[in-house]
Amino acid sequence: MLILALESSAKAASCALCRDEFLVAQSFQNSGLTHSVTLLPMAEDMLKNCGAALDQVELVAVAAGPGSFTGLRIGVAEAKGLAWARGIPCAACSTLESMAWGLAHLEGARLCCCMDARRGQVYAARFLVQDGVPRRLSPDGALAAAELADQVEKFGGESCLFLVGDGWELCYNEFSARGIPCRPAPPHLRYQSAWGVARCGLELARRGELTTPADLAPVYHRLSQAERERLAREQASSVSTAMDHLA
Amino acid sequence: MLILALESSAKAASCALCRDEFLVAQSFQNSGLTHSVTLLPMAEDMLKNCGAALDQVELVAVAAGPGSFTGLRIGVAEAKGLAWARGIPCAACSTLESMAWGLAHLEGARLCCCMDARRGQVYAARFLVQDGVPRRLSPDGALAAAELADQVEKFGGESCLFLVGDGWELCYNEFSARGIPCRPAPPHLRYQSAWGVARCGLELARRGELTTPADLAPVYHRLSQAERERLAREQASSVSTAMDHLA
Repeated sequence: MLILALESSAKAASCALCRDEFLVAQSFQNSGLTHSVTLLPMAEDMLKNCGAALDQVELVAVAAGPGSFTGLRIGVAEAKGLAWARGIPCAACSTLESMAWGLAHLEGARLCCCMDARRGQVYAARFLVQDGVPRRLSPDGALAAAELADQVEKFGGESCLFLVGDGWELCYNEFSARGIPCRPAPPHLRYQSAWGVARCGLELARRGELTTPADLAPVYHRLSQAERERLAREQASSVSTAMDHLA
Repeated sequence: MLILALESSAKAASCALCRDEFLVAQSFQNSGLTHSVTLLPMAEDMLKNCGAALDQVELVAVAAGPGSFTGLRIGVAEAKGLAWARGIPCAACSTLESMAWGLAHLEGARLCCCMDARRGQVYAARFLVQDGVPRRLSPDGALAAAELADQVEKFGGESCLFLVGDGWELCYNEFSARGIPCRPAPPHLRYQSAWGVARCGLELARRGELTTPADLAPVYHRLSQAERERLAREQASSVSTAMDHLA
């Protein structure tokens, strides 16, 4: 199965072309430029440079969340656009599970995949590598680094604990202050990569959990700033209406 | 130090842009297309897509050998061409040592970097990861897989032995038949990558072992087919001249 994978959930962006587990081509960048400018040309150049055409692609996999709202929207919109006209099925991959695949060769290792979610939180999920597969220990979610440290302490474990993703430093500081031994993933495996998304997408395909381009949507795991503000306004307004009634 | 790295020593080709150890961008492909067609556009597209210009590059690192003679010539010629006009220093990196950097996070692991050298041989070098650095156990060279197995048996060691590079299957068969436990490196780290070349180039820069674009040259580790045939012809001809003298 020829898989085109897109990853733009954080600062780095990447795209990959895989034949099942085999990596045919990958382009990655962590240059700080906006994904709306870089992701599509990068994917087009990648396909062009390895002589592949979009018509040959059998699955479009994308990191659907959690992550930067803007980044997710760019990745999902691009995946949707590429897949829709050609009727290619899509895989809405967990950004955190996709990250874990990059370290699935570290048999027995504990993986804490974590992204800086701002507002004092990280998006995180924990995995344990067994038989070359990252087995999920906790669901994707947004939580404080201290809560995540609680979970890690409660779960225990002796094997090496790797911090993967751009939230590694936040977690490293919190975990180290608590005496939880951990280390950042090595530099070239520390950030999200489209290979991991393709690998995660292949698992979803094998489990029959694909989606149509029309149904493909980001998975944010919390409300956007605009939604939070609207809710706050609505609550304030309903409180004031109630007060008016009482008055 | 901004490093542009090129890798075209085998079937896969890649280029990377690094700021010291930090990976800014990387493009990789293992599509089977010839490097003379793909390597330069891939490097140009990579620089373009992350908004970088060649004038900002401070070091051009290239996998200088061992490897496919044609592949090495393409990589070295491209590195030389890009660096010469701008007077950028070059790093002639060992292909095998560059490969080892990709697994330098596996503390304590033994690495056997091996490339299929045809004619029943592999290009190989062995490393031991200590303090995050691949320490060299044997020089780069061309040898039979059986000789390499002898070396590994003699050296011993209990830690996991990873086979890295496109010679992994040749070595895996030979090693397994002898009862030497080993495993291929994980798929996404199994082949050469330009990140490893950049990392190796940074070491050469730190040790003051750079070269000028003019002096940059491939390191083949054995004679080319044309040279072998010429030598054979010359030897045959000198034997026949000697025979004429005796007659």
